[in-house]
Amino acid sequence: MKSSLADLDTPCVTILLDRLAGNIARVQGLVARSGKALRPHVKTHKIPAIGAMQIAAGAIGLTCQKLGEAEVFIDAGVTDDILITFNIVGQAKTGRLMDLSERIRRLSVVADNDIVLRGISDAAKGGGRRVPVLIECDTGFGRNGVQTPEAALDLALLADKLPGTQFAGLASYPNNAPRTREFYAGAIKLFGKAGLPIPVLSGGGSPALNSLADYPMMTEHRVGTYVYNDVMMVQSGVASWDDCAMHVRATVVSRPTEDRAIIDAGSKMLTREQFFVKNFGHIVEYPDAALVNMSEEHGMIDLTASARKPRVGETISIVPNHCCVVSNMVDEVYGIRDGAVELVWPVAARGLMR
Amino acid sequence: MKSSLADLDTPCVTILLDRLAGNIARVQGLVARSGKALRPHVKTHKIPAIGAMQIAAGAIGLTCQKLGEAEVFIDAGVTDDILITFNIVGQAKTGRLMDLSERIRRLSVVADNDIVLRGISDAAKGGGRRVPVLIECDTGFGRNGVQTPEAALDLALLADKLPGTQFAGLASYPNNAPRTREFYAGAIKLFGKAGLPIPVLSGGGSPALNSLADYPMMTEHRVGTYVYNDVMMVQSGVASWDDCAMHVRATVVSRPTEDRAIIDAGSKMLTREQFFVKNFGHIVEYPDAALVNMSEEHGMIDLTASARKPRVGETISIVPNHCCVVSNMVDEVYGIRDGAVELVWPVAARGLMR
Repeated sequence: MKSSLADLDTPCVTILLDRLAGNIARVQGLVARSGKALRPHVKTHKIPAIGAMQIAAGAIGLTCQKLGEAEVFIDAGVTDDILITFNIVGQAKTGRLMDLSERIRRLSVVADNDIVLRGISDAAKGGGRRVPVLIECDTGFGRNGVQTPEAALDLALLADKLPGTQFAGLASYPNNAPRTREFYAGAIKLFGKAGLPIPVLSGGGSPALNSLADYPMMTEHRVGTYVYNDVMMVQSGVASWDDCAMHVRATVVSRPTEDRAIIDAGSKMLTREQFFVKNFGHIVEYPDAALVNMSEEHGMIDLTASARKPRVGETISIVPNHCCVVSNMVDEVYGIRDGAVELVWPVAARGLMR
Repeated sequence: MKSSLADLDTPCVTILLDRLAGNIARVQGLVARSGKALRPHVKTHKIPAIGAMQIAAGAIGLTCQKLGEAEVFIDAGVTDDILITFNIVGQAKTGRLMDLSERIRRLSVVADNDIVLRGISDAAKGGGRRVPVLIECDTGFGRNGVQTPEAALDLALLADKLPGTQFAGLASYPNNAPRTREFYAGAIKLFGKAGLPIPVLSGGGSPALNSLADYPMMTEHRVGTYVYNDVMMVQSGVASWDDCAMHVRATVVSRPTEDRAIIDAGSKMLTREQFFVKNFGHIVEYPDAALVNMSEEHGMIDLTASARKPRVGETISIVPNHCCVVSNMVDEVYGIRDGAVELVWPVAARGLMR
């Protein structure tokens, strides 16, 4: 007999399986209708079985942020097409990249400087294989990326010239960065003049799902958070509370005052990520209560605005501010359907930052 | 042959072993000279071998925040005296508590409400053993704890009356909360009038190490962060950069502009905890550079104020804002002495929140 949701000891992370399946189907449809390929980012879940669901729904392949994630998903045989969207630096890593390249049909990477390109080229030398490289462009987000279309062309030409690498396209994140449209308009003109086709133009971002049509030049979309959704996604208007598939379950362990409840989940479960969110999570059963502060293992809830107040021993469900970092705090998540625990998924790529 | 620090692939967490030993010895001496017992909190390191060093230096026992931590440290045989400073709620947990109670000389807990007390009492019934319970007091921090000395006395009397529990003292955190002195002055008078001795008065907090003498009523001090130290500890004046034993090692993977460097450590390594700190970590080799932002796997460094600029491929060392949460992100840490990797410690209690 399956155990029930109520029997799960807390704190723990639960995944509502019907919502998960709904999110995967809905966004696959949305991206497909925009004429782009969907390449889901595994960083959000780090679970091969969910990657397999995304592929089964029609995704062209998967995105990994680090080599360690790619190793887990390739070991699990989930897909034959992975893009690693992180500069791979150092011989330890380029060696692992070459090993992985032999194991699937297409393992592509990004690069935004010649040191990264040359490192991959050196590792690939003599192997006969050319690693597909997308040139990463900074279209205003202020993270990685070449700063101009001219610099992108220079690197693309270098990738084609070096042994062991091959220009495979351009990539940036997120679509709605300030200069995306003008950057790519310039790049398309410049690459055209140079006679160099851009096979893939890869964009991304979950909030950008609302504006796919505004970026017609993009051929594929990378997106992670949509699979679970979270407070940030609801706040940015691309999901409703009923689309939130990840709930952190916690128990009220203290009611020190009439207007304060303490739960057994703190920053080591929910993290203190806020970005533009006021508190630290949305409490499903007490939407007017506010998770206002956290220690490492305690959550402090202000009940002032909540007419109903939970009692000590009661279990509550919290939608985290940012689901992608919560996945990374736990070794397993519980898959829930109709109030029963249907499965336990190990978070196989948790903590794999190298 | 030992591998060298420079050979470690990044990102990773290193512990400078001489600084670690120095911190343990220095704070043990400081607390001992104040006439209090030291009960280090394992939440900071979650590593039994470090707990053993703390006990060997003279600590009276250890503090754990969750049962899962206590299980790891009892399995490792590090000490025969553990205090769990968290309300234990629910039969699954009280059952585990009873099992653990049989395995060491003294396993004490805290409680701040009668539901917690009765739950422990019910689980202990018939076992013949009485679990020592410290009543947790909220002296102004606004987390757990009874609100008045009167409420503390009521719970203490209940603990003594119930089968399976026994009043063992008062506890609060941190010492420098607004009402600590007046709360305990009142409690000592009230408990004295009731003829109930307070065997232990347990305080805590790393910043409070600077003011131990201001809290002469306290008999023991619980403290965690001092073992590694971090930006918050340096900012609060109880440690210098040379006392910081935890360094996150990261590699510069991009220099997209003259004044920007990108590293391979982000919020999944350093977390986004800031509290009163401006940025996300202190860069040892480039103290004038600022780790101004992070994505999950990227750190964004502003080099504007740094005359020297790191190159792509260079490895840097970062003192995190809050070491206790960084420990919880990794499965192992590397112990470093004289530039060599002397040992690898599994973070045995990582992620054990239940």
